[in-house]
Amino acid sequence: MQVITSPQAMTAWSLEQWAAGRRVGFVPTMGYLHQGHASLVDLAGNHADQVVVSIYVNPLQFGPDEDLDRYPRDTQGDLATCERHGAAVVFMPSTLYPPGFGTSVSVPGLSQGLCGANRPGHFEGVATVVARLFGIVRPHMAVFGEKDFQQLAIIQRMTEDLALGVEIVPGPLVRDADGLALSSRNRYLGPDQRRRALSLSRALRAMRASKLPQVAALRQLGLDLLEVDELDYLEVVCARSLEPLEHLDRPARAVLAARVGSTRLIDGMALEPRP
Amino acid sequence: MQVITSPQAMTAWSLEQWAAGRRVGFVPTMGYLHQGHASLVDLAGNHADQVVVSIYVNPLQFGPDEDLDRYPRDTQGDLATCERHGAAVVFMPSTLYPPGFGTSVSVPGLSQGLCGANRPGHFEGVATVVARLFGIVRPHMAVFGEKDFQQLAIIQRMTEDLALGVEIVPGPLVRDADGLALSSRNRYLGPDQRRRALSLSRALRAMRASKLPQVAALRQLGLDLLEVDELDYLEVVCARSLEPLEHLDRPARAVLAARVGSTRLIDGMALEPRP
Repeated sequence: MQVITSPQAMTAWSLEQWAAGRRVGFVPTMGYLHQGHASLVDLAGNHADQVVVSIYVNPLQFGPDEDLDRYPRDTQGDLATCERHGAAVVFMPSTLYPPGFGTSVSVPGLSQGLCGANRPGHFEGVATVVARLFGIVRPHMAVFGEKDFQQLAIIQRMTEDLALGVEIVPGPLVRDADGLALSSRNRYLGPDQRRRALSLSRALRAMRASKLPQVAALRQLGLDLLEVDELDYLEVVCARSLEPLEHLDRPARAVLAARVGSTRLIDGMALEPRP
Repeated sequence: MQVITSPQAMTAWSLEQWAAGRRVGFVPTMGYLHQGHASLVDLAGNHADQVVVSIYVNPLQFGPDEDLDRYPRDTQGDLATCERHGAAVVFMPSTLYPPGFGTSVSVPGLSQGLCGANRPGHFEGVATVVARLFGIVRPHMAVFGEKDFQQLAIIQRMTEDLALGVEIVPGPLVRDADGLALSSRNRYLGPDQRRRALSLSRALRAMRASKLPQVAALRQLGLDLLEVDELDYLEVVCARSLEPLEHLDRPARAVLAARVGSTRLIDGMALEPRP
């Protein structure tokens, strides 16, 4: 496994793979990799000959009051995880943006609600960094986790709209044995917080298990089960457009963001249409 | 020469050129081609093995009060011009954007002043269509005219920032024998308007010929020569950052936009540093 730190060297490596007819898969991350990330690396390996994992904590996607400075890091552990899961390259730039950087990529419609409502500028930062990373890494395909469902929808939209020619493959959400969606932020949770954090997946499972076709009732069912300190949102949205639904008449997703203590957690589950 | 109308077919053609080791040059246009455009096609031919010219009147870059509907078109003339200047492909999509299109690319800093001040959203529309066209056409290099100097700076910035891997080659401004910068919009000018339109290049030439190092005095010299109906701006800016200068202490450009009748004209000239 190779560690590449310069964007130029990264592009050169990828162009060699293209020239040799090898398919390049890509998993962009902010590091502190857990089993969820590892599953994305495995998935990329199923779709590509060579997998590149990027590790870069992107300042553009953090708000002024967010946890950029205390975002956890574990370079040695991350490299070991990538190696173990068969990555060919870890791309770990010290600075990703060139001097005078001034371009912004956004998908305003899909970025408005849900996480976008509470994190102004976040998805613009995500779309911008992913566009630049696609330019540098030149992947044939890239994997994005379904946990960040709004992010996945935004990246799919941007990739099609800008004709970037990258196949976007969604990676299923991975949970701990107790049901908690894996997240680098879970480490901030104390024992009682972790217990209450389980109410997120419990609420979503109850919503999925119920036969209720009306979103208002379904949503109330979930809300009643939550034991969080602050709810950002609990919504049932169209799985394609992310528009809020009133009836479960098409493939949908229940999506949820909440704070337990000061830790912001997100979770989500697919819901089948109900007659 | 081939005319391609579908984005998918355009990308497929380009990927064949890449695979064959042929360098693809690109000249994006809105059609109604004049000798200025033709010079860009020639220039692309000097830098590439195969030249693609796109013809697409991009709604995104027209404001609600601008001339999208009356923008002139001449498909047969355009195809003849492209053929005469050795284009391999004319890419002429009927619709360029996919259903549900929702992505925007912008370079806010460089888009604020000059033409951006009077045309809100214009450069966002330009950056977005060029990003998508680059995705579809996959050129190795592309030519943008220096006449639209702010546009050129924005495209250079975007291309570097998003690591698009396209070499941007500036094409010198082309003038009629009387000095008027070539533009598709010149056809709107009546005889008296055309006479007064010549004051743009006359003012710029006087500014370039003067020895004045102070921008305020230099600018006044130009203003005194203009015979236009409405001045949008006459500025002397840094040739790299587009920031307004006070002294001509670095490579600069005098840039100018004005209306003669209802026709908006732009022009510009390089100014050398003066001690």
